[in-house]
Amino acid sequence: MAVDYQSLAVRGVQALSPYQPGKPIEELARELGLEPSGIIKLASNENPLGPSEKALSAARNALSELCLYPDGNGFDLKRALSERYGVNPDQITLGNGSNDVLEVIARCFADSDAEVIYSQYAFAVYPLVTQAIGARGVSVPARDWGHDLEAMANAVTDRTRLVFVANPNNPTGTVHTADAIEAFLERIPERVLVVLDEAYCEYLTGDEYPDGVRLLSRFPNLIVCRTFSKAWGLAALRVGYSLSSPEIADILNRVRQPFNVDTVALSAATAVLSDEDYLVRSREVNAAGLIQLADGFDRLGLSYIPSVGNFIAVDVGEKAGAVYQSLLSQGVIVRPIGGYGMPGHLRVSVGLPEENARFLEALSTSLNESGQGV
Amino acid sequence: MAVDYQSLAVRGVQALSPYQPGKPIEELARELGLEPSGIIKLASNENPLGPSEKALSAARNALSELCLYPDGNGFDLKRALSERYGVNPDQITLGNGSNDVLEVIARCFADSDAEVIYSQYAFAVYPLVTQAIGARGVSVPARDWGHDLEAMANAVTDRTRLVFVANPNNPTGTVHTADAIEAFLERIPERVLVVLDEAYCEYLTGDEYPDGVRLLSRFPNLIVCRTFSKAWGLAALRVGYSLSSPEIADILNRVRQPFNVDTVALSAATAVLSDEDYLVRSREVNAAGLIQLADGFDRLGLSYIPSVGNFIAVDVGEKAGAVYQSLLSQGVIVRPIGGYGMPGHLRVSVGLPEENARFLEALSTSLNESGQGV
Repeated sequence: MAVDYQSLAVRGVQALSPYQPGKPIEELARELGLEPSGIIKLASNENPLGPSEKALSAARNALSELCLYPDGNGFDLKRALSERYGVNPDQITLGNGSNDVLEVIARCFADSDAEVIYSQYAFAVYPLVTQAIGARGVSVPARDWGHDLEAMANAVTDRTRLVFVANPNNPTGTVHTADAIEAFLERIPERVLVVLDEAYCEYLTGDEYPDGVRLLSRFPNLIVCRTFSKAWGLAALRVGYSLSSPEIADILNRVRQPFNVDTVALSAATAVLSDEDYLVRSREVNAAGLIQLADGFDRLGLSYIPSVGNFIAVDVGEKAGAVYQSLLSQGVIVRPIGGYGMPGHLRVSVGLPEENARFLEALSTSLNESGQGV
Repeated sequence: MAVDYQSLAVRGVQALSPYQPGKPIEELARELGLEPSGIIKLASNENPLGPSEKALSAARNALSELCLYPDGNGFDLKRALSERYGVNPDQITLGNGSNDVLEVIARCFADSDAEVIYSQYAFAVYPLVTQAIGARGVSVPARDWGHDLEAMANAVTDRTRLVFVANPNNPTGTVHTADAIEAFLERIPERVLVVLDEAYCEYLTGDEYPDGVRLLSRFPNLIVCRTFSKAWGLAALRVGYSLSSPEIADILNRVRQPFNVDTVALSAATAVLSDEDYLVRSREVNAAGLIQLADGFDRLGLSYIPSVGNFIAVDVGEKAGAVYQSLLSQGVIVRPIGGYGMPGHLRVSVGLPEENARFLEALSTSLNESGQGV
C-alpha cells in the first residue's frame, strides 16, 4: 500500500499553508501576455526608488567572488551595523531577510508545549513560524486595526515563550508610541521574549515613536528585528537582522544556517548603510506618496487605515476580489489581504508619483466596473 | 534575579554548537596582517576556476532589480532544472544552499520523538539539524571511512524517520556504486525517508555510480539533494535544491521560507545550467588536481583517503593542529576535521595547479617544522 507522506509530516506542518507573496510582475506578464515593463507592482512594500547607487556598486564588485562561500560571520556588515546603531557586533544575528530571523527565534525558544502571542491582522509570518514548530498561536483581537497591547500583555500565561509585536504593523500601517511600547514591555515577565519587529521603522519621523535599539539595555528579554528590504531598497537580496543581548544572540546564532546571507547581499547591505541620502529620499518619496494615495482615496469616497508604513490598506468593500482582478487586468498588482482576515481591504504599496496616479486611475475604473464607484 | 535565557532555549538548542566553516581569507588576512591576495584557501571545497561567464553575466543583469522581492516560486530556475534533469517543476524544492533544504526536510519529518540516521564522518549539517529539532541522532560507524550501508539499514527502528546518505561523502570523499545504493534503498521501509545528498555528484564520471534522479520513480521515499556551490561554482550565492515526489515537495515547500533564494542567485543558477563547457572544465581541473595532490602526498609519505570529490582528506597524524597552524602562517588555509572525529586528518580542497603546488610545498615545510617530515 502506498505511504501517505502527508501523514508522516510533523503535526504542525500537516495543516500548514505556505505564505502567499505578492504576484510577481513576470508571472502576471506571462498570464496576460503583456510586456513586464507595462506592469506596475505595488504589492510587496518594495522601495520604488530603485537601488542605492552605493549598494549597486558594492554588489557589482562582489560578483568576482561568486565561487567562494560568504563570510558566515558577516564581519563587515556587523561592524557597519554596530557603528550605525551603537551596539556591539555580538548583539547582532544576521538573517536571510528578517523572515529568517523571526523563524530562528521561534525555533530557538518555542516548542510544541509553548504559546506564542501575536496580534490579529499582524504579519503572516508570525503564525506560520509558530505553526511549523507545533506551538500554540494566540491571536489577540486588534483594536482599531492595531495591536491591543494591554490585551496582549493580559494574554501571557505560564506557557507563553514569545510575543511578536510589529511596530509599525504590516498590513495595517498602525503604530504605537514609545510610551505605549515601554509600558507594554514593563508588563511582560522577563522570562517571556518580546520580538519587536521594526521592519518599517525607517519610515517613522517624530520623537513620539520608539527606537527599539535604545530599549535593549532596559529590557533583557527584548529582541529587535529589522530589514534591508524596505526603506533600504534591497528586497531582492534578503538581508535582515536582530539586535538583542549577546546571550540571546549567541543562542540564535547556533541555529542560524552558517551561510544564510550571501556575499552579494552582505556587500550591498554594508554599503547602503552609508548612503544616508538614499534613506532620506526614500522617506520623502514615501511621505509624499502616502498623502497622494490618501487624497485619491478621499476623492473616491473610500475609507482607509491611516498608515505610517510604505503602504496603505484601503477598504473597497465586498467586491475586493473583483477589484483586485480588474486592477490586474489593467497591469496593476496590489495585495489582497483576505488571508489576514481583511477581505474587504486591498493593501497598496507607495510607489513613485506616476505609479500612484496610475493605480488611482485604475482603481477608479475598477470600482466603476464593479458598481462601487462614487 | 536575572533570567538565564540559555535555560529557556528548547532542549536540542541548549547543547548545540554551531557549524564551523572554513576560515575566510579576509579573516586570516586581518589576523596575520597579510594582503588577501597572498592567501590561498583550499578549505571549503569551492570551485577554483572562478565563476562561469554566463552566470556572471546573468548575475550582473539581475542587479537592476535589487529593490524587488525575488520570485518566490523560482519559475525560471525550476524550468531550467526540469529541462536538464527530466523532472517536473513540482518535484523541485529550492533552498538557500542545500543546507537549507536539508534543514527543511528534517523540520518537516522529524520531531523530538524521531530517530535520524547518518554515518560517522558524514557532513556536519546532518547531526546539527537533527539536534536543533531535538530528535535523536544515530551515527552509524563507518567502514573504511565510508558509509556502512548495511549497518545503516540495520539501524532503522520504528522511530526512524530519516536517513541521510552522502554520495560522494564529505569530508572523506568516499562513494558507493549504483548497485550498492539501490540495494540499500530496497532495504529501507517506504515510511522512512532517505535523503541522498549528491552535493558532489557532478564530479563523478563512470557508469558504476548512481544518478539519484533516475531512482526517484522507483523509490517514493527518496529525496535527492544537490547544490550549485561546488562544480557549478556559485557558493557565494547559496542555491541548492531537492528532487522528490510532488507530494513530498509540496510538504517541503510549506516550510521553506517564501523568498529563501535571492534574485541574483536565481538568475545566476539558471544561467550556469546552460554552461556545459564550465562544468566540463570544472571536472577536468578537479581530476587533474586530485592526481597532483595524491602524487604529492605519496612523495611526502603521507596516507590519504582516495577521493572522488573535489577535496582529499590527508592523514598528517598527531600534530595535525600544528600543521594546520603552520599552513595558516604560510598563507594557506585548509580544513581541520577534528570536529568530524578525524583529528589526524586535514581536508584540502582541489585548487588550480599552482595552488595545489603551493599547498604541497607549504605542507612539506609544515611537516619538517613539526618533525613529521619524511
